[in-house]
Amino acid sequence: MSNYYELWKYLDIDIDRHDELMAILPDFFKDVYLSQKNRPEGMNYFNLVVSSIHGLRPKELVELRNKGKKVVGTFCVYVPDELVFAANAVSIGLCGGSQFWVPDGEKVLPKNLCPLIKSFTGAKLSKTCPFFQCSDILIGETTCDGKKKVWEILNKSIEIYVMNLPQMKREQEYKEWENELNLLKNKLESLTGIKVSNDMLASSIKMINNKRKALKRLYELRKQNPVPISGKDVLLISQIAFYDDPERFTQKVNVLCDELDERIKKGEGVFEKDAKRILITGTPMALPNWKLHHIVETSGAAVVCEETCTGTRYFENLVNENGTTLDEMIKNLAERYLETNCACFTPNTKRIEDILRLINEYKVDGVIGYNLQFCTPYAVEYYNVKKALEEKNIPILLIESDYTENDTQQIKTRVEAFIEMLK
Amino acid sequence: MSNYYELWKYLDIDIDRHDELMAILPDFFKDVYLSQKNRPEGMNYFNLVVSSIHGLRPKELVELRNKGKKVVGTFCVYVPDELVFAANAVSIGLCGGSQFWVPDGEKVLPKNLCPLIKSFTGAKLSKTCPFFQCSDILIGETTCDGKKKVWEILNKSIEIYVMNLPQMKREQEYKEWENELNLLKNKLESLTGIKVSNDMLASSIKMINNKRKALKRLYELRKQNPVPISGKDVLLISQIAFYDDPERFTQKVNVLCDELDERIKKGEGVFEKDAKRILITGTPMALPNWKLHHIVETSGAAVVCEETCTGTRYFENLVNENGTTLDEMIKNLAERYLETNCACFTPNTKRIEDILRLINEYKVDGVIGYNLQFCTPYAVEYYNVKKALEEKNIPILLIESDYTENDTQQIKTRVEAFIEMLK
Repeated sequence: MSNYYELWKYLDIDIDRHDELMAILPDFFKDVYLSQKNRPEGMNYFNLVVSSIHGLRPKELVELRNKGKKVVGTFCVYVPDELVFAANAVSIGLCGGSQFWVPDGEKVLPKNLCPLIKSFTGAKLSKTCPFFQCSDILIGETTCDGKKKVWEILNKSIEIYVMNLPQMKREQEYKEWENELNLLKNKLESLTGIKVSNDMLASSIKMINNKRKALKRLYELRKQNPVPISGKDVLLISQIAFYDDPERFTQKVNVLCDELDERIKKGEGVFEKDAKRILITGTPMALPNWKLHHIVETSGAAVVCEETCTGTRYFENLVNENGTTLDEMIKNLAERYLETNCACFTPNTKRIEDILRLINEYKVDGVIGYNLQFCTPYAVEYYNVKKALEEKNIPILLIESDYTENDTQQIKTRVEAFIEMLK
Repeated sequence: MSNYYELWKYLDIDIDRHDELMAILPDFFKDVYLSQKNRPEGMNYFNLVVSSIHGLRPKELVELRNKGKKVVGTFCVYVPDELVFAANAVSIGLCGGSQFWVPDGEKVLPKNLCPLIKSFTGAKLSKTCPFFQCSDILIGETTCDGKKKVWEILNKSIEIYVMNLPQMKREQEYKEWENELNLLKNKLESLTGIKVSNDMLASSIKMINNKRKALKRLYELRKQNPVPISGKDVLLISQIAFYDDPERFTQKVNVLCDELDERIKKGEGVFEKDAKRILITGTPMALPNWKLHHIVETSGAAVVCEETCTGTRYFENLVNENGTTLDEMIKNLAERYLETNCACFTPNTKRIEDILRLINEYKVDGVIGYNLQFCTPYAVEYYNVKKALEEKNIPILLIESDYTENDTQQIKTRVEAFIEMLK
């Protein structure tokens, strides 16, 4: 395929509607990202990946499919990429971060539902996302009511395999989750026709751990004052982490980190020294949802950490690499994944411990609780998060928002007042 | 205690706020219920129970507690009353059907959350519900995101034991649920200090089955044309089923059914012969949520069946009484309870089969999908319900509502137009 239009036609993309989408993105990216000062050179790779988002990587994926690989779309940090790669398939985290797709989602879903779910549903049904179009199967999960139920609608358009994620973390749920990973392995094996071997699983565990280590390294550098990279840039990297080739991604993040090491030596940063440091905690921010970071970082503060699924929850905790049999490795995977603290579990007090630890580690001045509208688990859990922070006199502000721009000015006013108030 | 004020003070009720609540109910009940024509004599018992709702039964419960019994509050048709009674405790289904409690719930919960959850939370926190006040423990469950997370807030006010309800119905989930029932049994035994014996469990299985049979008998009579009892009256009976003494309740329902049998012989009904017959399907209607039934039945149609948790889901399917060991009986309980088809499961296609079956059995002219605002599982599942009904040319209307009276007129207009349109 000599150009992306051929690719998109091949993928049965609705070209006219897709053109509308593509017409919005470049200016939006330019406004939010390219306007930043003193960006690291290492961001050029990520700029390229995002500016050719519906071309570069989808083209690679189609080429891999033509060589016989299967492409597996996922939606959640609890779905283990390791198993997908070990079965000789490619895992891509599908997104739904744009308002563009919401009206199409609302044709089959209630309006008062999380924008992320409406967005990815619209992306599939409107045939305007090449990542959905080149997925052979989607792996859903029972994380929240909205996602649990949307698979029953989306499965009319594409095969969906649903993993039953436990809702508690007692001993029995660890076993149930281990069993669930075994079932996924079987499913992937029958999809690809390839049996997962010890070597393949061990090597994919290493590969994904390396990606986690690179992201961890990047996050560690944000602890510096002045901070050597904007929160907005790190958010972009996290978003790309979900669908890029894992080995290349890891390498590019490490190259960037080398550059940031140099900056730190020189005491160089992207914000003034002692700029107010913000931790964002709550729901994920799928590409291209950059709203809150953009508001915070054009209001004089720096986002230094995200306790979200597009933040620490994605890369914290490594899989133990000491397993030698498949059973041991799957047990290790099960343990690592259930350590992640999402509000879909009850109780989920360890998330509050995570937040308090991150506040301390990243020398945070104030916390913004971010909630996608109608995300019930995080919305209800916020009460206990706020209480825990107030007990320690840590300022916290709740921002609930959707993907429209309707509330941008109002959020900016509130965020500015919040930053102003930080000592 | 010579009067209910003494009882309420004993239960640490906020008397002033409670007086406000009690001032609303009698007129409301009179308008909605006592205005009906030709009501069966047998409704007098239920009129009495509801008109003295915060007195009669709470007084009994306090007396039982004074004799050493424990009172166990529950919120869901998946929590097996049989185990509670077998452990020598009393089970009461707690409600939250009034807007009165919503503002108190919203002090700790997001506004865009299901009114039922906000209402029962407000009822507990405001200390204005004697049923909550005389519960020794609450049994929560992981049915939906809202309930799953609210226990983490409510457990600051009262002990809550949470059951992990599965989200699928594969073989492994049946086993998990059986295990969960065993854990509940242990918990109840340590609460009451009484070991559940074979005899006690067998007899409580019979007792609750008898209650189900009585409700089933009542529902069967609604299949007649003209229908011998209003949907509103049956709804009231279903609501009372959750907290009344099970044996007395069963007896009173059977007495009522005897009377209805006589009516049927005489061809007597509460609506005109051939009045349009409506099935309501969706979310539960907790006391005193009579809004939709009242609108339908003051618009010339009859509600003849409810496929809801305050309808068929509460009493359909009996527990197999052939178990002789505790293990067998608990297995039988697990099987019966998991047969109930709630939208919290995925997939839940059997609910659609239930709806189609009930439409046929009850000779339904039109279906109203009822959804408590922000109830995501039922809201998303509605898409497939609607599709299945449209394929069979069965008219369906969606009513999403909360506990306020703000939308009453608008709903009435839509319901009238819907009934008008039925052939």
